[in-house]
Amino acid sequence: MTQQQRQTLDDLLRHGPLDIGGDVAEQRAVFHEMIASIPLPEDVSVKPGLLGGVPVVTVETPGDDPSLVLLYFHGGAYALGSAADSAGLAADVARRSGARAVSVDYRLAPEHPFPAAVDDAVAAYRALLDQGVPSTAVAFVGESAGGGLVVATLVALKDAGLPQPASAAVFSPWADLTLTGDSLAGKAEADPALTPQGLRTRAGDYLGPADPASPLASPVFADLTGLPPLLIQVGSHEILLDDAVRLAARAGAHDVQVDLQIWPGLPHVFQGFAALVDEADAALHSAAAFTKSHWAGREGAPTVIPAGRGPARD
Amino acid sequence: MTQQQRQTLDDLLRHGPLDIGGDVAEQRAVFHEMIASIPLPEDVSVKPGLLGGVPVVTVETPGDDPSLVLLYFHGGAYALGSAADSAGLAADVARRSGARAVSVDYRLAPEHPFPAAVDDAVAAYRALLDQGVPSTAVAFVGESAGGGLVVATLVALKDAGLPQPASAAVFSPWADLTLTGDSLAGKAEADPALTPQGLRTRAGDYLGPADPASPLASPVFADLTGLPPLLIQVGSHEILLDDAVRLAARAGAHDVQVDLQIWPGLPHVFQGFAALVDEADAALHSAAAFTKSHWAGREGAPTVIPAGRGPARD
Repeated sequence: MTQQQRQTLDDLLRHGPLDIGGDVAEQRAVFHEMIASIPLPEDVSVKPGLLGGVPVVTVETPGDDPSLVLLYFHGGAYALGSAADSAGLAADVARRSGARAVSVDYRLAPEHPFPAAVDDAVAAYRALLDQGVPSTAVAFVGESAGGGLVVATLVALKDAGLPQPASAAVFSPWADLTLTGDSLAGKAEADPALTPQGLRTRAGDYLGPADPASPLASPVFADLTGLPPLLIQVGSHEILLDDAVRLAARAGAHDVQVDLQIWPGLPHVFQGFAALVDEADAALHSAAAFTKSHWAGREGAPTVIPAGRGPARD
Repeated sequence: MTQQQRQTLDDLLRHGPLDIGGDVAEQRAVFHEMIASIPLPEDVSVKPGLLGGVPVVTVETPGDDPSLVLLYFHGGAYALGSAADSAGLAADVARRSGARAVSVDYRLAPEHPFPAAVDDAVAAYRALLDQGVPSTAVAFVGESAGGGLVVATLVALKDAGLPQPASAAVFSPWADLTLTGDSLAGKAEADPALTPQGLRTRAGDYLGPADPASPLASPVFADLTGLPPLLIQVGSHEILLDDAVRLAARAGAHDVQVDLQIWPGLPHVFQGFAALVDEADAALHSAAAFTKSHWAGREGAPTVIPAGRGPARD
């Protein structure tokens, strides 16, 4: 079934209405409708709020441990999407991790260019710590631009003298706004969702006059020394495949614990399609297991824990 | 304790007698003595034999399932080491995987240059299949040169029209005999075990007049399409770090399922030092879990199974 599932998802994305580089107002609506068409499970609670002056959405599922926080960063190429739009995926990760997700509505481009998103991310995390949440009870999770933003934020935390969270998991991170990865061309045919030109447009919106190679815009060029354990998941049918690979390479070169998982035949942020492809469910379980294992570390367990391939369900 | 453990291992390797590029006869003896100084557990059975005309050592631990085979490839830069020398590490993987290990004594350079090792690996695997062992009950495991040899052999199997095994796990693979990875220089200080010059000497021994970029000598340049799920483990204190990263990148580009784990602060084939560092034990458990999950696939379970970070012990 899996090959058929992958083909169904590919068709859906290839022929869908989303144009990542299109008119911002129009594509925000498309992005919202595309995601709103998948209703949230009835047991998911979504509450808007403010954290450090930044709008957030708290996503809770039954039985979660409210002392554990997934600080979640949605995708949308820094110009589209919202915390509410990504509540479904945040809930999927949060449920499997047994934590509440706090999804950050960082300011979007082009209205709020770089480094507005990073500033908001740091402010939200700082406020969590100020509330008394220990850094070791926080894990970062992000998808696409939100994945790049996760890593940029971890770098910014070092500069701000704040402690790192327990771990970070990123799905299909957009980590190079100079758009120089080989997969930009090599996977252009295979990628049903993103185009180099679309990303180029959105990079321009986000960067404004800033240097595209700035470490806080393109963390593949950052000093990643001191980052917490990093899980990177990416599909092999993505023009951003090399962003994931180079992020892993850079983090490893800087002595960060890295687990890079490449999922064959799958598109950008396939984790959002757990209803369609078995791999999405498996990847989400894996991300949750990773996150939980590093929370476990604060309870005196070994800080290095194996990334085994266990059964597909808890 | 972990930082102290890592330092102990670093000191041991940095001041040890092994010189990877030294005189072959002398260094074979050093390699053998270094490993023989760690006695095998009493419950490990080691039996020499022949498989397809190639000398092998079968390594068994109590309670293993003899229908499952780890085809194991030892390290030693294609010139040093033996199946018997690596019986301890093979037993460690086999015990955790619940399988018997068959460790291949492929011919060594400089007496037997490329592609003798690949030919022997293919012959041994073909003989296993001829004995009626299903390809889905075989997993490849290799360390260092044996890790590169695993991937080269998988490529050679395609050319030979033979089915792929269920999975392959490689520890610190030497996968680029052109020696062009950035980490050759970038990690030269941090690496306590290997030197670029040492590897250059051994590459010359193995290659003879062959092209160092031959896909069967340097599988980072091979067409990896159709390979089975691949687990790659590497330490961040290795000049071969980039061999692992580029192998993962290449496999992912070719739509292979890849899990690349980078273990910070650890040296070449740290899995061989489970008595010294906790991470070795964790990495071995992770490799065994990976291997077992892909054997499970032949029993009708989903072929894609999450790489979770579970507890440190089974």
